Amino acid sequence: MLSKAELERARERAAVALAEAGIVLTPEERNAIEVTDFGLSDLERIGLGVIVYVNTERVCAKELVLFPGQTCPEHRHPPFGGTPGKEETFRVRAGLVYLYVEGPPAAEPAVQPPRPEHYTVWHEVELRPGAQYTVPPDTRHWFQAGPEGAVVSEFSTQSRDDLDVFTDPEIQRATVVA
Amino acid sequence: MLSKAELERARERAAVALAEAGIVLTPEERNAIEVTDFGLSDLERIGLGVIVYVNTERVCAKELVLFPGQTCPEHRHPPFGGTPGKEETFRVRAGLVYLYVEGPPAAEPAVQPPRPEHYTVWHEVELRPGAQYTVPPDTRHWFQAGPEGAVVSEFSTQSRDDLDVFTDPEIQRATVVA
Repeated sequence: MLSKAELERARERAAVALAEAGIVLTPEERNAIEVTDFGLSDLERIGLGVIVYVNTERVCAKELVLFPGQTCPEHRHPPFGGTPGKEETFRVRAGLVYLYVEGPPAAEPAVQPPRPEHYTVWHEVELRPGAQYTVPPDTRHWFQAGPEGAVVSEFSTQSRDDLDVFTDPEIQRATVVA
Repeated sequence: MLSKAELERARERAAVALAEAGIVLTPEERNAIEVTDFGLSDLERIGLGVIVYVNTERVCAKELVLFPGQTCPEHRHPPFGGTPGKEETFRVRAGLVYLYVEGPPAAEPAVQPPRPEHYTVWHEVELRPGAQYTVPPDTRHWFQAGPEGAVVSEFSTQSRDDLDVFTDPEIQRATVVA
């Protein structure tokens, strides 16, 4: 759960990070930045800011904004409506992101998530500005920003956040603002 | 047809425009910027710089770079492989773009293309940074940058440039470098 004040502060921080990365938003977009705490009420450590540019039946594009050290928790995008599920490419625009996906686990992961008992994939991909990685449909992944936060472009097939399957059973994707 | 020197100069100009828009490329991407003159050998007025970030069977994302006043000529993306054809969203990151699509024609279009006899759609959409427009599959469109050039993000379904249908019969999409 987020308070209205917390939501507005997070939007302002995300807007500043986007502007510093050279990304121009309309005033309407600025005021509609989605902020999610994944229902865990620990936004500073677990959460995400999101601007959805387009999300049709075929194509989706977003910008993601992470606070310093903030984690987007482990999840997968399952098949739906006769499709294999969402395929997504993350391209880092600013900052540093540690992305974890299915595959041989890192011997010494660069970062640890909060609530680590709910994380199962540890193949590490370090992404700096200009670097990108494509996550196949229905495969588990999570990511955490480095010490200066991050701005990440996401290019994907249709986004259906309501269908995302999180490993942590406490997570609720829809944000509740008190 | 482009000379190698012309290609390299165009890549350098595109790289500068992208950097000024805050867009970070890897050195490999910088050296692989696609420059097309659409076979008309008039690059300063008719052409495009392109960086393809990702192009899978399902999703494509690119940056487009236009010189001041440069035109991407009228074309459409026809159905193929059981799909309705490429659906694409243009989002302007820097500069100004006049996009023309099917619909009620502008009484006084803001710009004119070279070889105007090969242009048939005149519904005008003015796009400044933060503005975007989604072009449906198989519909004609063209665009021209304003006096300072433009950087445009393109989010789409799979891109198959080889299938593009241009109105101007002289156009060849594949670039020939002499």
